[in-house]
Amino acid sequence: MRFVIIGGDAAGMSAASRAKRLDPGLDVIVLEKTADVSYSACGMPYNIADPERSMDDLVVRPADVFRQKSGIDLRTRHHVTQIDPDRGAVAGTADNGAAFEIAYDRLLIATGAAPMVPDLPGFDQTGVMTLKSLDHGRRIKAFLKDRGVRRALIIGMGYIALEMGEALRDRGIEVDMVKPRPALLPWMERRLAAEVEQELTGNQVRLHFGRKVASLQNDDGRLRALDENAAPITDHPADMVLVAMGVKPNSELAARAGLALGPSNAIAVDRRMRTSHEGIYAAGDCADAYHVVTNGRTWIPLALRANRGGWAVADNVCGQVVDLPGVAGTAVFKVFGLQVARTGLSGEEASESGFDPVSVTIVSHSRAHAHPGGSRIHVHMIGDKHSGRLLGVQMVGREGVAHRINAAAVALHAAMSVGQFLQCDLAYAPPFGGVWDPLLVAANQLMKVL
Amino acid sequence: MRFVIIGGDAAGMSAASRAKRLDPGLDVIVLEKTADVSYSACGMPYNIADPERSMDDLVVRPADVFRQKSGIDLRTRHHVTQIDPDRGAVAGTADNGAAFEIAYDRLLIATGAAPMVPDLPGFDQTGVMTLKSLDHGRRIKAFLKDRGVRRALIIGMGYIALEMGEALRDRGIEVDMVKPRPALLPWMERRLAAEVEQELTGNQVRLHFGRKVASLQNDDGRLRALDENAAPITDHPADMVLVAMGVKPNSELAARAGLALGPSNAIAVDRRMRTSHEGIYAAGDCADAYHVVTNGRTWIPLALRANRGGWAVADNVCGQVVDLPGVAGTAVFKVFGLQVARTGLSGEEASESGFDPVSVTIVSHSRAHAHPGGSRIHVHMIGDKHSGRLLGVQMVGREGVAHRINAAAVALHAAMSVGQFLQCDLAYAPPFGGVWDPLLVAANQLMKVL
Repeated sequence: MRFVIIGGDAAGMSAASRAKRLDPGLDVIVLEKTADVSYSACGMPYNIADPERSMDDLVVRPADVFRQKSGIDLRTRHHVTQIDPDRGAVAGTADNGAAFEIAYDRLLIATGAAPMVPDLPGFDQTGVMTLKSLDHGRRIKAFLKDRGVRRALIIGMGYIALEMGEALRDRGIEVDMVKPRPALLPWMERRLAAEVEQELTGNQVRLHFGRKVASLQNDDGRLRALDENAAPITDHPADMVLVAMGVKPNSELAARAGLALGPSNAIAVDRRMRTSHEGIYAAGDCADAYHVVTNGRTWIPLALRANRGGWAVADNVCGQVVDLPGVAGTAVFKVFGLQVARTGLSGEEASESGFDPVSVTIVSHSRAHAHPGGSRIHVHMIGDKHSGRLLGVQMVGREGVAHRINAAAVALHAAMSVGQFLQCDLAYAPPFGGVWDPLLVAANQLMKVL
Repeated sequence: MRFVIIGGDAAGMSAASRAKRLDPGLDVIVLEKTADVSYSACGMPYNIADPERSMDDLVVRPADVFRQKSGIDLRTRHHVTQIDPDRGAVAGTADNGAAFEIAYDRLLIATGAAPMVPDLPGFDQTGVMTLKSLDHGRRIKAFLKDRGVRRALIIGMGYIALEMGEALRDRGIEVDMVKPRPALLPWMERRLAAEVEQELTGNQVRLHFGRKVASLQNDDGRLRALDENAAPITDHPADMVLVAMGVKPNSELAARAGLALGPSNAIAVDRRMRTSHEGIYAAGDCADAYHVVTNGRTWIPLALRANRGGWAVADNVCGQVVDLPGVAGTAVFKVFGLQVARTGLSGEEASESGFDPVSVTIVSHSRAHAHPGGSRIHVHMIGDKHSGRLLGVQMVGREGVAHRINAAAVALHAAMSVGQFLQCDLAYAPPFGGVWDPLLVAANQLMKVL
């Protein structure tokens, strides 16, 4: 049997490796359009922050090692341009210009996501960057080195934008960030978002809210961002512009083949990662998922889900029926000295999903009363007034946030009520928190309004 | 209605404060034998480590504040010596010598636990210390200051012994630790325990296993510990000996009144903290609890349980029926640079409880592949071969252990299988861990042997 995989990143290589382990006789072919497979994309901002490190440090396993050791037929620089479900074949072109067509018994589409770049004047100039693939990272790093970049403009203020803002500040570069909407992290409770905003401005990142970049003008080799009224957005032109306005699923190939799409035009899959077409699976950033809180479909492109989805496809292709419960929307990111984490739904998402959300925001401490050091932790917790169920948690703090959020994530998977979560026996020792963990303090307050 | 509480520490004061809030008209009397109420006992080793800090920093709320602000009739230096359930009264003696008798409608016994001190020659000398109450802490701190202690011997190697070992080393004191059993932390998997042992010896703590202190001999004002053969345990006599051989519940008063006792002679309570006698509750370190994994009774004296138990008693006394699910046995402590955490059952406890435990031990990393910094995390995970259920987790590492354990604790409360836990959507960002959290790496390995 032949298992063909389009895309050699997290989901694709996870599926390929696991399928080959489960069934060494399986013919596994991976078609990857770039030269890179199996790298830590999320590590790129931290790598870019350090001029001494090579971008290749992020490669977990080079393509050659896969080819030699795993028995996977890994074909890099192979760009699939067509899926023919009726004939059970994919077709495309290799970088050397040769066309190829490959028949499959089972197909995995793991084409990932791509940065959104608006079709606006000046966005095609040198110095306008995006960050998604390792080649993007290499390009940014080379540009920073070669051009002596002193000022950068980042369009967007999502995870990648914020992480890159920090990376560029770490390199001593002046950073402006701009977005059309009026608020930072709109899904986040306002007091928590204010903490993040303060951390950014405290680290000399200049934030421009409510401004939309309409064009990028060449200003003597530098880039000047102008709004709809042709007014400049920043005082000085930038040496580099990073477009970090979000990503969209690479689902065109699937759509052209007639596969059903879900939220955000991600490829619709069931809990076994099966698409609408027999024998075709999708996983990773190009596919949608079920949300464990809403039980509905959602599109949250994150790395763990991609790896897990790849594994589940391999299991199902190899005859081990595996159903994935879905995602809780758990995420964490670092903004300079802050840890910012979330799991589950925001208040707005909860309302949209038909819940009756009530919430509290509390300030607690990362260490016990009277223990030296430590700092504030803000917790925003959301429950359903109707059922009492825990719906979501957001946290911001300087320490002890990144892993604390996981307790709430597990509670969401278990569909716990806030009252049940409040009774959980969480760890306590003075260097690591108070007797009542900040999550329990929040749950206790939330119980009073539920 | 009069609600009388014996003991003004975590459970007692939590119950008193909450009862008064719920029902301001309630007559709440707290009888505390010392002068201190509401302090962070767990903070004492860290306070002792710093000669500049006052032990009173650990007092969360002084007795006077309680008296003035809360409406609680708080009587410190009142030692209850008798409970008469038939008459509904307690009797005792105040420090001023006056006898008292007080009738109650509801009674809470929150007498805590006491350090075990063996009845052996020399243990009554100056310089032999225990650490449980704030007065114990003050006594140790004053002794360290006044006597210029250079060498200390700690008998026992439990949490308090280890935390005090670190505190004394922080003050530049030479530390020997001795225990009769051959292994450090016998509930812990051997590779994890070896990490802790290495951390202790790496910080110049000398460990003496398999040696039993039979007497303490006065050696020119210092203390020489001798074994059963009168052989000295350490090369040099100590200026101070800390007896940290564990604690026992203060349940004699309850036992004399005819109340049923449970494991370790703790006062037996149901999920509403009711003892065997109508109208009498017990909470905190003197009472037992249900274990969420075994569903059986257990005695695990920890602070969160005491606070929570106190609240539950107040709720039940005030007519709000509250059932506590019980404890998961979650605990964390710091040993120099290491974070050591556990939740649920050890392999031995699982066998004793009728499970069919299988386990794995894995080594993972506290940060992502290629992210600078970070260190190893050891995870030991135990599941039930019969049901697939997650039974317990132990972790040791330099960062990211203390709060990670809580995800597993919540999973135990939800009675999750290892397979269900493996599917939980935990947070990922390179500064805080790999895509697959160490807990998920362990769960994945455990699935292979379940």
